[in-house]
Amino acid sequence: MTHTVLQRKLLPTLDFLLHEWLDVPRLLERERFAEHTRESCDEVLRAASQIAADYFEPANRTSDEQPPVMRDGGVKLPKESHAAWGAYNGFGFLGASHDEAYGGMQLPKTVDMATRVIFAASGPHLGPTLLTDANASLILEHGSEEQKRVFALPQLTGRWAGTMCLSESHAGSSLSDISTKAVPDGPDFGSDPLGPRYRITGNKMWISAAEHDLTENIVHLVLAKVPDADGVVDPSTRGISLFIMPKFLPASDGSLGERNDISLISLNHKLGQTGVPNTALALGDGTYQPRGARGAVGHLVGEVGDGLRQMFHMMNAARTEIGLSAAAIGLAGYAVSLDYARHRRQGRHAGPRGKDASQPQVPIIEHADVKRMLLAQKAYAEGGVALALQAARLLDEQQTGSPEQAKDALLLLEILTPVVKSWPSEWCLEGNSLAIQVLGGAGYTKDYPVELYWRDQRINMIHEGTHGIHGLDLLGRKVRMAGGAGLDLLGSRVETTADTARARGLDDLANQLLQAWRLVVQTTKQAWSTGDPADALANATPYLQGFGHVVLAWVHLDLAAAALVSSHPESAGRLAAARYFFSYELPRAKAWLDLAASRESLCRDLPLDAF
Amino acid sequence: MTHTVLQRKLLPTLDFLLHEWLDVPRLLERERFAEHTRESCDEVLRAASQIAADYFEPANRTSDEQPPVMRDGGVKLPKESHAAWGAYNGFGFLGASHDEAYGGMQLPKTVDMATRVIFAASGPHLGPTLLTDANASLILEHGSEEQKRVFALPQLTGRWAGTMCLSESHAGSSLSDISTKAVPDGPDFGSDPLGPRYRITGNKMWISAAEHDLTENIVHLVLAKVPDADGVVDPSTRGISLFIMPKFLPASDGSLGERNDISLISLNHKLGQTGVPNTALALGDGTYQPRGARGAVGHLVGEVGDGLRQMFHMMNAARTEIGLSAAAIGLAGYAVSLDYARHRRQGRHAGPRGKDASQPQVPIIEHADVKRMLLAQKAYAEGGVALALQAARLLDEQQTGSPEQAKDALLLLEILTPVVKSWPSEWCLEGNSLAIQVLGGAGYTKDYPVELYWRDQRINMIHEGTHGIHGLDLLGRKVRMAGGAGLDLLGSRVETTADTARARGLDDLANQLLQAWRLVVQTTKQAWSTGDPADALANATPYLQGFGHVVLAWVHLDLAAAALVSSHPESAGRLAAARYFFSYELPRAKAWLDLAASRESLCRDLPLDAF
Repeated sequence: MTHTVLQRKLLPTLDFLLHEWLDVPRLLERERFAEHTRESCDEVLRAASQIAADYFEPANRTSDEQPPVMRDGGVKLPKESHAAWGAYNGFGFLGASHDEAYGGMQLPKTVDMATRVIFAASGPHLGPTLLTDANASLILEHGSEEQKRVFALPQLTGRWAGTMCLSESHAGSSLSDISTKAVPDGPDFGSDPLGPRYRITGNKMWISAAEHDLTENIVHLVLAKVPDADGVVDPSTRGISLFIMPKFLPASDGSLGERNDISLISLNHKLGQTGVPNTALALGDGTYQPRGARGAVGHLVGEVGDGLRQMFHMMNAARTEIGLSAAAIGLAGYAVSLDYARHRRQGRHAGPRGKDASQPQVPIIEHADVKRMLLAQKAYAEGGVALALQAARLLDEQQTGSPEQAKDALLLLEILTPVVKSWPSEWCLEGNSLAIQVLGGAGYTKDYPVELYWRDQRINMIHEGTHGIHGLDLLGRKVRMAGGAGLDLLGSRVETTADTARARGLDDLANQLLQAWRLVVQTTKQAWSTGDPADALANATPYLQGFGHVVLAWVHLDLAAAALVSSHPESAGRLAAARYFFSYELPRAKAWLDLAASRESLCRDLPLDAF
Repeated sequence: MTHTVLQRKLLPTLDFLLHEWLDVPRLLERERFAEHTRESCDEVLRAASQIAADYFEPANRTSDEQPPVMRDGGVKLPKESHAAWGAYNGFGFLGASHDEAYGGMQLPKTVDMATRVIFAASGPHLGPTLLTDANASLILEHGSEEQKRVFALPQLTGRWAGTMCLSESHAGSSLSDISTKAVPDGPDFGSDPLGPRYRITGNKMWISAAEHDLTENIVHLVLAKVPDADGVVDPSTRGISLFIMPKFLPASDGSLGERNDISLISLNHKLGQTGVPNTALALGDGTYQPRGARGAVGHLVGEVGDGLRQMFHMMNAARTEIGLSAAAIGLAGYAVSLDYARHRRQGRHAGPRGKDASQPQVPIIEHADVKRMLLAQKAYAEGGVALALQAARLLDEQQTGSPEQAKDALLLLEILTPVVKSWPSEWCLEGNSLAIQVLGGAGYTKDYPVELYWRDQRINMIHEGTHGIHGLDLLGRKVRMAGGAGLDLLGSRVETTADTARARGLDDLANQLLQAWRLVVQTTKQAWSTGDPADALANATPYLQGFGHVVLAWVHLDLAAAALVSSHPESAGRLAAARYFFSYELPRAKAWLDLAASRESLCRDLPLDAF
């Protein structure tokens, strides 16, 4: 067993979360997971850790130093990325949570996502799943049987990979504005066994993991609009349809057929995560002429006009995974800076007569402010990982729980997703900055990975919906959906945690949490008290920040309550992180929430010439 | 006149600060500045802006793409850096504030520092002054007449450059631990006309702007310890002396003589600011043998054991300049993201029946959350620049004011320096992150400079004393010095501002400021109420953060009060920034200050195995 600094931190952290907190052992009693035991799950995690140490950790810097290059119309990745991808799929991690009938391991999502924490922390640059699992999952959910067989299953083994093609240069956050068009491909278009066949033309922007050379084929899931008989498209999101558009058209025997008309326009030169190529693509520009005609060939998924709803399946999965990845990168920075702080000697404690320079210097971890920076990272990263794994646990609940449990799980997932995606993106970025700070000047050099983690992390507040978008989603939709049912349900979970915490002697924290939750509920009402979205949503981002901090206080208190009845070696740290969070972090929430509650109109109303 | 996006923002911002706020016209009435008029100062700023646009802006990315390389034992910088250095010094900017007798322009420091805002914003990578002005200033303050003539004056024209050599690999923040030694150079060592001559041996780390090829010579100011007759050194900082150690020993006619024994060990590979090489140096390792003997030749400045006190002169200047540079980089990010937000169209306003997708998209600056991100940047960057220029104004006051004014100015500078250095470093980093956020995915690419600003900015919380060090300096020393005289004086300035603001109708903000200031005073007392530094200083960094936010509220209110009686086009923006700061930022201060007031002991007392 390789024991890198990082892996030594990851495994015990995950072990506590899965077994002492999320009660995976009980989950394993359900029929779907009959083939698994606690031991077999632990074995999977240890294997992930070994592969991550052997392939992902070393490849992460390589892939920063050797960013992808365009070659022969495709994207060439370094050999270390190929090796990591091979090892990852050699074990079958991509299909880990999928049905055995599809060749998967049928592992709980909770355990599957825990392996992703390991890989994302060890090689954030490599984006191991490359959107492939989310792509395959969408097809398995919404595709026809033939689409599943032909397009999803080869992705679960990593033989093929997947992308999502939504944005265009003039339509990033505003998807209603996409201008990629899909028209029926000949009179027999509807009788293709792979689904109604269209010819697609347009340009797509910000497409991650496209055109790389890791796999023999790439399955693009593409949003496009189908013009009506007069050639007119619906300008709203209701005009959006979803198409499967493979790089190589599959022949009927499953082998690769003709090249589809998808060309690489350019590679974006990114600040971080360069190991995952980000591209602009031209669809149907005539570079290739599959089956002798213009337009990229795509197969409709489901019904025309249903594209955005289907795509949300993939977007929600991607959002959860981004939150998880953000937390994992935070954990990586924490592990490296903790190790540095234990070994780097600098300064002395002040005695009664000041500092005695004749004494040896102490490890910097003994300084109160260094402890503060480490504890902050611990609270951000381990809190973020806990939050993301809890979301995975809800996915398991949705799939294998009673109808009531499944309904509640879905409701909680809906309201928590903006937080799962945004909170770790923001606070583990702060944590990664603190990791640099702990290392001081050394942290600003490429001799340590912390500067790279910080760069890798920065995209997470942007892709899959910016902070601003998630704030609007949370305050504009999620807390109000079904008459506030999601907010109520979350509130009841908060109360349950507070009750448990009180019963275990954490009255002070329980009271603080309940008070903070009441502030959230009250703020939500006040923000909407005029009924005008422009009033309510003018401070949707500060609301998201305040709401997020309260949710994390809940997570930390729940973890601390679990730690109090556990003899796990991680327990002391869980209590410390909770205490830190309640003393140093939760008091910040009020300043953000007050802005939403007072419907502060300064920003909204500011004339543009005042900037 | 070149009008880049950046320069169009810089000049009006500085114009308001200098003329409507810091009252430079009245400063110019003082005898020292008799040669200058408002017009001539404006001319200097316009010239700076022109040179910055022509040389600094284009060279900034070049110097990121072509980081310095080691060649022939030195550091080679790209030709664009040479051109920028030449243009900068061709105008005489390095000597701008120095006495005419020394060949300077005798400009007010306030105006001189305003030019540095322009250069630091336009080419943060180029670090135009390269510590040279601060080095020369220290020699002019503490050196002998001959040391001034030989070592300082060539730096004021940019013919030579300067460094500061403090850190060693085991002694970064802890200067008492330096092990570089200086021994008298022969029996006649005391009679050298350039000052007592020593031979110096040791290694120095994190030395910025060393061994580059911009200038024919480089003057190192080096901290070293002089052993006593028994070969023993004082382990405390009292054992530290200061030496002038030129790369080439000057011959008596001022020409360059022998190579001193300073060798480049390595270049650090940095996350940003690569244009300023950062090096490790070996002193006296025998690579060169100046005058046929071992050890690098250095000349003592002042007295043995007085090194750290003298070096503080340079460190304080460098700290102010770092704060100024941090604010300037924040301003650059603001200017670029503001321009982007005015032109990039995305999304629509919601009407009574939601969004009408058939309408054209709006510039993103019209979205409330984008305005929030721009206003935050404006408040951080323009507030930071105002703070730094105010410090420069205090330097002018110290030099040209009445004895009473000079005394007060010094006291204010002492207490404000930790904030001037730290606050812009922290919050303009946040601002630079928001600039990326405004640009979305585009901000994460190298197509725009915002990702570079963010990287450049990150070092500012580290060099010249980390945040942690400045927190200790502020709460441990500065607020307590002279029986709290600095805190009292700052309090009286805060009250004056509040009175003025009230008289101009800003009662709400004035009251909020006074309340916040009372909290600072009370917190300071509570933190020290046990008299135990370990209690008081356990939360010195949160104290620094809270204190800093209150100081900035004071600056913003003072600016707003000035704007209310001004017809300057910047006035509306000044009021908006103040309103933003009081609504969105100042309420955060309490959460930080409460930690110091309650002497929260969590971090200090946490056992090391809880991490």
